[in-house]
Amino acid sequence: MRHYSPSREFVIIKVMKLSQLFTKTTRENPKDETSVNAQLLERGGFIYKNSAGIYTFLPLGWRVMQKIAGIIREEMAKIGGIEMFMPALVEKKYLDATGRWEVEVGFKIANDHAVRRGSTSTRLSLYEVEPLSNFVLGWTHEEVLTAIASRFVSSYKDLPFAAYQIQTKFRNEPRAKSGLLRGREFMMKDLYSFHASEDDLWRYYEDVKGAYHKIFHRCGLKAIYTIAAGGTFTAENTHEFQVLADIGEDTIFICDKCEYAENKEISKLMNNGQCPKCKGKIVERKSIEVGNTFPLGDKYSKAFDLKFVDEKGESHLVIMGSYGIGLGRVMGALVEIHHDDEGIIWPEAVAPFKVHLLALEGTEKSGDEIYEKVLHSGIEVLYDDRMDKSAGEKFTDADLIGCQLRFVVSEKTLQKKSVEVKRRGEKDAKLIELDNIVDILL
Amino acid sequence: MRHYSPSREFVIIKVMKLSQLFTKTTRENPKDETSVNAQLLERGGFIYKNSAGIYTFLPLGWRVMQKIAGIIREEMAKIGGIEMFMPALVEKKYLDATGRWEVEVGFKIANDHAVRRGSTSTRLSLYEVEPLSNFVLGWTHEEVLTAIASRFVSSYKDLPFAAYQIQTKFRNEPRAKSGLLRGREFMMKDLYSFHASEDDLWRYYEDVKGAYHKIFHRCGLKAIYTIAAGGTFTAENTHEFQVLADIGEDTIFICDKCEYAENKEISKLMNNGQCPKCKGKIVERKSIEVGNTFPLGDKYSKAFDLKFVDEKGESHLVIMGSYGIGLGRVMGALVEIHHDDEGIIWPEAVAPFKVHLLALEGTEKSGDEIYEKVLHSGIEVLYDDRMDKSAGEKFTDADLIGCQLRFVVSEKTLQKKSVEVKRRGEKDAKLIELDNIVDILL
Repeated sequence: MRHYSPSREFVIIKVMKLSQLFTKTTRENPKDETSVNAQLLERGGFIYKNSAGIYTFLPLGWRVMQKIAGIIREEMAKIGGIEMFMPALVEKKYLDATGRWEVEVGFKIANDHAVRRGSTSTRLSLYEVEPLSNFVLGWTHEEVLTAIASRFVSSYKDLPFAAYQIQTKFRNEPRAKSGLLRGREFMMKDLYSFHASEDDLWRYYEDVKGAYHKIFHRCGLKAIYTIAAGGTFTAENTHEFQVLADIGEDTIFICDKCEYAENKEISKLMNNGQCPKCKGKIVERKSIEVGNTFPLGDKYSKAFDLKFVDEKGESHLVIMGSYGIGLGRVMGALVEIHHDDEGIIWPEAVAPFKVHLLALEGTEKSGDEIYEKVLHSGIEVLYDDRMDKSAGEKFTDADLIGCQLRFVVSEKTLQKKSVEVKRRGEKDAKLIELDNIVDILL
Repeated sequence: MRHYSPSREFVIIKVMKLSQLFTKTTRENPKDETSVNAQLLERGGFIYKNSAGIYTFLPLGWRVMQKIAGIIREEMAKIGGIEMFMPALVEKKYLDATGRWEVEVGFKIANDHAVRRGSTSTRLSLYEVEPLSNFVLGWTHEEVLTAIASRFVSSYKDLPFAAYQIQTKFRNEPRAKSGLLRGREFMMKDLYSFHASEDDLWRYYEDVKGAYHKIFHRCGLKAIYTIAAGGTFTAENTHEFQVLADIGEDTIFICDKCEYAENKEISKLMNNGQCPKCKGKIVERKSIEVGNTFPLGDKYSKAFDLKFVDEKGESHLVIMGSYGIGLGRVMGALVEIHHDDEGIIWPEAVAPFKVHLLALEGTEKSGDEIYEKVLHSGIEVLYDDRMDKSAGEKFTDADLIGCQLRFVVSEKTLQKKSVEVKRRGEKDAKLIELDNIVDILL
């Protein structure tokens, strides 16, 4: 499954002028948000809260999401994951096969009749038909893909394979809070793998573990591989990728030496106890779950009679795994980890732009020239060309939005035929000669 | 709004081996599909029908969708459209502002209580609470984006701007049929523009018209710009982009000379009548609506009190337009237009791969070498490396899947140090020397 070579084909806009971006930053924290990620992302114009746990990704935020998605796509390709796209509307027939129609986390679609009755009366005292349609909004797609696979898989030659999608998921969370960390509608990468044996599943499970570590590392997160309970999905032990953060809703026991970790829900370890692996000290920490992996065994293949015939002509159930990453959670966790009092400090790989270029008063023409120069070198640049804003306002916005490199063009720097370059999160700026600015970017 | 330069950043897998693609082609048409697009797309392994009007995009189909999306993104960037992403769950507060909560085409989410009651009883005889939640699945996003804009727009300096998304839409279609041509869940590009004056809207409206013609042309469709009724969305005249096809559910009157067209629903023209523009002959034709443009005026800005202050300090309502393209419809229309008895004939820009490489019996090693060679040249190639399939089966699959260039490696071609190259839809093949195959692709 290793013969896929990733490449870059989709389209993203490389450059943007702030005068043409319709969003604006705000100084005040939104009143209804308590988490740092929601506060900074709303203030910077990355997201807009439509309802509890439901956000719009504004242009800057959508760029960050696409950067995260791009990293995931590359690493999925390296482990043979093929991209596809399943529907959000999942029919009852799929979930009935595993008994998951009853799971309350799903948003059910109302019956048509209920809609018509509901639309003419705000409260019905008598209601004589089933209020639900046969559809739920997919919160996961094991059943759907297993049913699809049963059309195509019949022989051991058809295995193994792995398919994934990056798609909106829906969960009726009673406590949607913490900004992007717990949403009712959120973007998820869900990968499913199909194998002829448990050995092959476990081999691939390790591949996914490696890919996940690479993904989180490339995004700028340190994720701890944590043993966890099965939850609603499976009876066996599963694994989570946890980012240490006080705002996290999960609690893990982690060894301060070898980083062996277990989710508190299933752990027999204790705070200040001894690590079973290396005798280091176990500490209790709060964390954000950004990904998870599930060895599913034959649970779903049994439900959908997904079988293959082996070399000897014998029939067996297919062995499966599933693997998730919450893209919004990754974005939220990034902000929780990488910020200071002034705003976000995006790791370069996921920043909305590489360069934030500020042209101060009286330097419009030179600013435009530098912008064109950077633009033609193929570097992503956000250009603050607004001439009705003070230098202070521009600096504040640049710190809040959080691109890695800030270029300032002022009358003072131009006298020295230079641009002031400062890295976000560092104090010292330096002057770079105009002739050299593209070189330092490449 | 023209300072965006598109570039290619997202990730797509360039190459694929058929032995590793989990889908398979089938010879028989699916029993429950009557349209050519659904039949060929299902048989080729592009789509999978989950429910009426609800399809999975399998890996090959998802590639085609991403090609269409890429073309749309490039053309949107050229007219200053900025990409963003709004939620599918739309709260009642948005649609109440325009009275569109009552529109029956929306899938409403059931009330939580209804879900719990519904889950324990299949039919309720007494139902004492409102069966609907406050959410509907977005079938369009005028209200949501107008509300968002009202946070950011206050001055004429904030206008104009245009923002779009490529996102799943949901419509409770009573007659979901015709494959991808009329879905209940479908991918749509929806663009919204905001202006300080009607003049500026009409200027941009023409820009969008030009961009749409380019998009459809690049995808391989000829779309007729057609005057249409407002429908549910607006009272004014709107415009549709119609692709002539007998399977189409729309009927238009079109001039056989200048192609002036009106939708029959609003037209006073007649079959065999005279064109009001050029005196050519008007003919009645069936067609598929692949896009539409709506001059919205101040309908939505009035509902959300979206105003701006002009240079003189006077306050005005913002003038808006909205513009849609159905990506699945484009894909379905492409298949309806571009096929023959053997299968699909994808236009090159939207084909899942540029080259379909077939290695016949005994040529596995040479096939692998050619595959590596093409792969390293950066060309997208689908490699039929299956050694348990006959030449006939491989030819049939290649015709069905429909990539533009078919490369055949056989013992016969290898004796001449060549590969047989044939263009899909043409009869004649020619031999190209192995040393030259990459050159003819670039």
